[in-house]
Amino acid sequence: MRRPEKYTPVPVRETGVDIINIKGIEDIGYAQQDSILLNALVPEENTHCRQGLYFQDGQRRVDYVLTYHIKKQSSSRRHSSRLTDNAFTRSLRRGRVPPPKGDPEVGAQEHSLHYHEDDKRFCRDEFESSLMEMGLELEKDEHTKTPGVGFVKIHAPWHVLCREAEFMKLKMPTKKVYEVKQGSNLVEKINTFITKLTEPLHPNVEENRIQNVKHLSYPFSREKQHFLLANGVYMAAYPLHDLLYEEWASYSVFYKYQPVGLIRKYFGEKIGLYFAWLGVYTQMLIPASLVGVIVFLYGCATVDDDIPSMEICDKRNNITMCPLCDRACSYWKLITACGTARASHLFDNPATVFFSIFMALWAAMFMEHWKRRQMRLNYIWDLTGFEDEEDHPRAEYEFRVMQKALKKEHKAQKVCKLRNSPKENLVTASICAPQIGVTFAIVFGVIVYRISTTSALYMSSNPTTRSNVRLTVKTTAAIINLVVILILDEVYGAVARWLTILEVPKTDKSFEERLIFKTFILKFVNAFTPIIYIAFFRGRLVGRPGSYLYVFESYRMEECAHGGCLMELCIQLSITMLGKQLIQNNLFEIGIPKLKKLIRYIKSKRRAFQEEEQDKKLQRYETDHFLEPFAGLTPEYMEMIIQFGFVTLFVASFPLAPLFALLNNIIEIRLDAKKFVVELRRPIAARAKDIGIWYNILRGISKVAVIINAFVISFTSDFIPRLVYQYMYSPDGSMHGFVNHTLSYFNVSDFQEGKDPLEPTDLEYKVEICRYKDYREPPWSPTPYEISKEFWTVLAVKLAFVIVFQNVVMLMSDVVDWIIPDIPKDISVQIHKEKILMVELFMKEEQGKMQTLESKDSCNNHSPVPRPRSFPNSHTND
Amino acid sequence: MRRPEKYTPVPVRETGVDIINIKGIEDIGYAQQDSILLNALVPEENTHCRQGLYFQDGQRRVDYVLTYHIKKQSSSRRHSSRLTDNAFTRSLRRGRVPPPKGDPEVGAQEHSLHYHEDDKRFCRDEFESSLMEMGLELEKDEHTKTPGVGFVKIHAPWHVLCREAEFMKLKMPTKKVYEVKQGSNLVEKINTFITKLTEPLHPNVEENRIQNVKHLSYPFSREKQHFLLANGVYMAAYPLHDLLYEEWASYSVFYKYQPVGLIRKYFGEKIGLYFAWLGVYTQMLIPASLVGVIVFLYGCATVDDDIPSMEICDKRNNITMCPLCDRACSYWKLITACGTARASHLFDNPATVFFSIFMALWAAMFMEHWKRRQMRLNYIWDLTGFEDEEDHPRAEYEFRVMQKALKKEHKAQKVCKLRNSPKENLVTASICAPQIGVTFAIVFGVIVYRISTTSALYMSSNPTTRSNVRLTVKTTAAIINLVVILILDEVYGAVARWLTILEVPKTDKSFEERLIFKTFILKFVNAFTPIIYIAFFRGRLVGRPGSYLYVFESYRMEECAHGGCLMELCIQLSITMLGKQLIQNNLFEIGIPKLKKLIRYIKSKRRAFQEEEQDKKLQRYETDHFLEPFAGLTPEYMEMIIQFGFVTLFVASFPLAPLFALLNNIIEIRLDAKKFVVELRRPIAARAKDIGIWYNILRGISKVAVIINAFVISFTSDFIPRLVYQYMYSPDGSMHGFVNHTLSYFNVSDFQEGKDPLEPTDLEYKVEICRYKDYREPPWSPTPYEISKEFWTVLAVKLAFVIVFQNVVMLMSDVVDWIIPDIPKDISVQIHKEKILMVELFMKEEQGKMQTLESKDSCNNHSPVPRPRSFPNSHTND
Repeated sequence: MRRPEKYTPVPVRETGVDIINIKGIEDIGYAQQDSILLNALVPEENTHCRQGLYFQDGQRRVDYVLTYHIKKQSSSRRHSSRLTDNAFTRSLRRGRVPPPKGDPEVGAQEHSLHYHEDDKRFCRDEFESSLMEMGLELEKDEHTKTPGVGFVKIHAPWHVLCREAEFMKLKMPTKKVYEVKQGSNLVEKINTFITKLTEPLHPNVEENRIQNVKHLSYPFSREKQHFLLANGVYMAAYPLHDLLYEEWASYSVFYKYQPVGLIRKYFGEKIGLYFAWLGVYTQMLIPASLVGVIVFLYGCATVDDDIPSMEICDKRNNITMCPLCDRACSYWKLITACGTARASHLFDNPATVFFSIFMALWAAMFMEHWKRRQMRLNYIWDLTGFEDEEDHPRAEYEFRVMQKALKKEHKAQKVCKLRNSPKENLVTASICAPQIGVTFAIVFGVIVYRISTTSALYMSSNPTTRSNVRLTVKTTAAIINLVVILILDEVYGAVARWLTILEVPKTDKSFEERLIFKTFILKFVNAFTPIIYIAFFRGRLVGRPGSYLYVFESYRMEECAHGGCLMELCIQLSITMLGKQLIQNNLFEIGIPKLKKLIRYIKSKRRAFQEEEQDKKLQRYETDHFLEPFAGLTPEYMEMIIQFGFVTLFVASFPLAPLFALLNNIIEIRLDAKKFVVELRRPIAARAKDIGIWYNILRGISKVAVIINAFVISFTSDFIPRLVYQYMYSPDGSMHGFVNHTLSYFNVSDFQEGKDPLEPTDLEYKVEICRYKDYREPPWSPTPYEISKEFWTVLAVKLAFVIVFQNVVMLMSDVVDWIIPDIPKDISVQIHKEKILMVELFMKEEQGKMQTLESKDSCNNHSPVPRPRSFPNSHTND
Repeated sequence: MRRPEKYTPVPVRETGVDIINIKGIEDIGYAQQDSILLNALVPEENTHCRQGLYFQDGQRRVDYVLTYHIKKQSSSRRHSSRLTDNAFTRSLRRGRVPPPKGDPEVGAQEHSLHYHEDDKRFCRDEFESSLMEMGLELEKDEHTKTPGVGFVKIHAPWHVLCREAEFMKLKMPTKKVYEVKQGSNLVEKINTFITKLTEPLHPNVEENRIQNVKHLSYPFSREKQHFLLANGVYMAAYPLHDLLYEEWASYSVFYKYQPVGLIRKYFGEKIGLYFAWLGVYTQMLIPASLVGVIVFLYGCATVDDDIPSMEICDKRNNITMCPLCDRACSYWKLITACGTARASHLFDNPATVFFSIFMALWAAMFMEHWKRRQMRLNYIWDLTGFEDEEDHPRAEYEFRVMQKALKKEHKAQKVCKLRNSPKENLVTASICAPQIGVTFAIVFGVIVYRISTTSALYMSSNPTTRSNVRLTVKTTAAIINLVVILILDEVYGAVARWLTILEVPKTDKSFEERLIFKTFILKFVNAFTPIIYIAFFRGRLVGRPGSYLYVFESYRMEECAHGGCLMELCIQLSITMLGKQLIQNNLFEIGIPKLKKLIRYIKSKRRAFQEEEQDKKLQRYETDHFLEPFAGLTPEYMEMIIQFGFVTLFVASFPLAPLFALLNNIIEIRLDAKKFVVELRRPIAARAKDIGIWYNILRGISKVAVIINAFVISFTSDFIPRLVYQYMYSPDGSMHGFVNHTLSYFNVSDFQEGKDPLEPTDLEYKVEICRYKDYREPPWSPTPYEISKEFWTVLAVKLAFVIVFQNVVMLMSDVVDWIIPDIPKDISVQIHKEKILMVELFMKEEQGKMQTLESKDSCNNHSPVPRPRSFPNSHTND
């Protein structure tokens, strides 16, 4: 079952960073068994492992590793700094030691200050002594096979873990178990049936078996230690890392649920929540894509019954349309738009309206479902009482404060606090705005490209070219857009980070939130501007024959093909979405890390040219040098959020979006899993109760989606004009005559000079009246070409639809939000039960204690509290 | 300073119900000093007091009183039951004793079961013994001067309080204090200045002095007792009750802030939060009413510059209008509407639009401000870590379950759980719906009244009557509406309670929430239906001359006066709002309790006729019998929420609403205060972190307010038609000609038979064409009387305005929500600081302990934990 040779370069436990950020104490339950298992199963590898996993004495485990440079070399400075920064800020602050000047993030500024090697050594010594004061045990190793890098291995003894657990009020399972009742008979039977049915979908992991008993949890307290720390809770059959590799980070298990509990145990709550969220999202995409496919199929099935497109394709309707461009284009027959009209029906039919309402509710359901899932995880992971951890001041910020203080000292001996002055925010805004400006400019550029290419191609004499003009231009323009989006995405990511660093936020959390917000705004604008242009502006600012609108005084604005712009919106959407997913997510995510690893490997090879064999004999903590450091979950979330935007924002025009998203995500989960397990250094386990700012962004997108879909349906699709025609103008209440109704008349003698077609007799008869798509008065009315009453009627109905749609959907979402309780029923029942049991347990103990006290009180003043530290120190004794 | 004779009938402390719902432990800090003060200041009253306040031994305080009937008498059953229900459910459940069958709420069902007196006595004995098992001390008193009522006085000893505090994780101030930093220099100075400025506004209470030190708080733990319970925190100069009476429950301090901390200490967090909320709301009403008054004054100031009303009042504009009713009415001159038109301008001017945007943002600000205040109170009251208390199952529910079980037992010996079956919900819905139907029917009735009276009055020959017709009808109709609303309000309150009792909700909380929700829906519909009718339906379903709409085939639907329906909406609003406030809130709230008290007093007088002197010698806990029991905060909140609805929902039409609300609330606060201090039994202190469901209802109202105001501005006011005229139709861009533009033409020969005026020559000339307010084609167009293009144009603009207004205001509210952090900056800084200090404190102790341990470990195994219970039991020792 164990095949360690398969993934030796992987960090198994030696990056397990569980000391000060106290997760370790929970791991102890199985860490013990784990090491025993190592001994039992792989004795031949054990001696090798022990070298990296334990101190020289072979007893104390290495919980954390710090690295530093012995001589001036610049290869792995960032590594050292990152690790130090996160794990020891707290102990630093508590110990009141100034941060070591060789500290990581500060390191970037280091060159300007020119600290000497001795200074750094002094700082390190001070830092290390403060660590030891906190009770940690250190071991230095400067003579490894990696030249120029010194390692400090850190071990956190049992009593330090206990103390920290108590400070954090970490909830621990107690020895007391209770039975989880399974509800009434019918519900129980259904549950059992579902469990059996989904049995093959669960990962092959012990923890997923449904258990009928649960351990009570209680905040860790050394006084109550005798209750706590139920051993044998975790019955892992073999080490966690291998389990995750086989049952999670593999494409072959794509159809299975994720072992979220194990992910959390190995990577911490924050990453666990990400994967749980991704799982819920993917799961929720299944019904959405099913309905989307049905809606699409409905469109396909009804395409032959659609009266407007039948009318367009009917040869008896001999409608002459006005030219699509000045001079070069001639009049054309409406029947040539037959194909487009039929294709438009696929995405522009009454089912689309239903689908966008469905998706708005789906989004609300998804948010609710996630809240419940999060609550359930909080309960299972014993986070229910956990308050957010304090916000660590960023080293960068502290460094800047210090720097400012030093400067001031020279002048007035006065310390001044560094604040986020409005000036700095202004700078950010003034840099962000041009970024968005760039996006707009590029979109505009693409529009101009499209207009000019179209007219150029129309002028071509090749008839095949001319007939394919529209499709060619659309597709190339969409691809250009995609490429631009991909490039700008990378640029914007860098810009956002740079801007946020400029701002010098005070704490880690505020840094992260500012960065996320900026990145989100830029990337969102980047991804959706071209789409919004097509949905709402294209074809609306055209003018009318005889008085067209011109860009640069020569290019006419684009019109939409007959049948609304929905078709083009759809093409643009699908190309952007698929392209982004395929190229950016998959290619970049797989390709770039592999490339980086290769480069790092080659570099080290060159340096260690003389020690060719080195690689094989490296300690575990040395091999980890060649892995990419963990850079936060932001890119992963961002990718999914933008995808969520594609799925909800314009879903009215592209019902297949959820399906594409689903297919992508099935791969994405395993891809991310592989990345975390194999490609990256094991991240520091961070606690979190929720997904933070991302939840708010999701909510924001869902809200915006409602209004955007309302506008897409009423303004981009032909839904409302059809309705209005059918119920207000149609002589027989059917759709017959709709096409004629939407086309206005134009007298060709009213063309401006020099704008009329060069070849007016292209259609082999003289055209006197041509038609164009708009609601305007005919030439023979008293007010020719004025906007007609029909226009205002349709507009009023469109706007009324937007109001009704928006408010009804918002109301329904609120009702969904209100009906579904945030805390699942069974969880709230269990929490309630646990509370009562806990009180009962302590009451019983209380009474016992009282009796003991009373009986002993007469003799001496012996303490009734069980002696602390009498609990066997299982860690150091093994 | 002390005037105890002034409010002897008031419960000073004997209803202080602080045992099991553990608040008492906090009171101990000053209770000690308090009783000493009693001794020192009023020695002559003390002996009298002690009889009621203490057990017979004069040592142990009475913390809680239970009453029961010795013989069959039905006067104060509910009292006993209420008290028992709330305070002892928990201990009951813990002790696993079945609830005593003589239990309060169950008492209502008691008659049907015919328990014998012996049964009851047995139950009581069982209940009392379980109380004693929990460590409480009891004293019975069956021989009081109140005949037929037995009293059980309960005392909670110190160790019980400690135990319960620990279970509840009650946060206590520790002995450790730290300095609260005052920010930078400038901020500090401003703060000091503001403090000085508002000095006279603060109640004359010790706790309001700004303190520069704060005690650290920590969840109570007997192990850590030596840190905890800082004495002397509360420096009350004289008892809390008197302080509250003088500095809070008095109209003379109406301009001062409320002593919220003291209210909380005396009544518990739940009631404290209500008054804090009321205070914040009233405070926020000040800017709103200021702006409202300015907007109103702007209307007054610009009434002479308003071109449309100038045109109406201009004698040169000789416009003949179509008759307002069939047959009886004749043609009339537009100039007669001059007064109404000018009055309409007061409420229908551009400032109104600004004001409704302002009020929407105001509502958002209010919600935010309250969240912050709540957070601050949570922090000050040490509730930050407090999780919601478990939900007590209702005795009523348990009783029903038992009943069902007993029934089943006869049949199949099987226990079945009582659930809220969908059937029961259906019943509720089917009873609620008719209630709303009744409201609609009554509104319709009032409409018919108005229509019929109008036509009847028009027929009167008295010219003065005829000229005042409109005003008379409007006002009487509004008053009828008000009376109906007032009556239905009481009916609906009772119906909602009855329905909720029928549903038998499982827990207290769900009972309360269901009741609130139902009451809210019914009262809200009741209050706002007539207003919504006037705002959105009146004058819209009129038809046109020659083809009017008729009700009952004879009454024409009402039209609005010229200048929109806004004026009438305004009258209706002001009458409803003022009437509701004056009659319902103040008259009912002051009058009814006084009346009830009088009745109860007379009753007891009659019964105790022979013991005339009894009253003066009654024990404190006996006098409390004659006070009204506390019935929950629901009515108080409900009243304010409906008022909030008036202030926000239709504020576009009535900018003075906030002012009226403000004036009402200034009285309301003191009125409620008086009620709580003097008229009601002291309520059981309940903990709460927030205002619960009310917050959601407030949010809901704010959301609805945005859309309703958007519709009021665009559909009820003339704002949009004016805009459209000015920018689309006006020949010179001014408002001149607007009145003419809004009036359509009607050829009098097109009247239906029998509908034309009886006296067509009333105006002394023959009328051929009359005008009416609508956008329709003139008689000479090809489609006479059809809806014109202008109508659709205006409609489209109106709808567009609604969309823009709604989304812009919602966006702005979200931005307000997002910009203002939920936790005030200084509080989050302090919380962070406290955490660090607490860790430091324990770390220091830790190290000290370790050293002691090490030095002693060599000698013997003495426990390093300080001996528990060594803390002086300040309660029993005084």
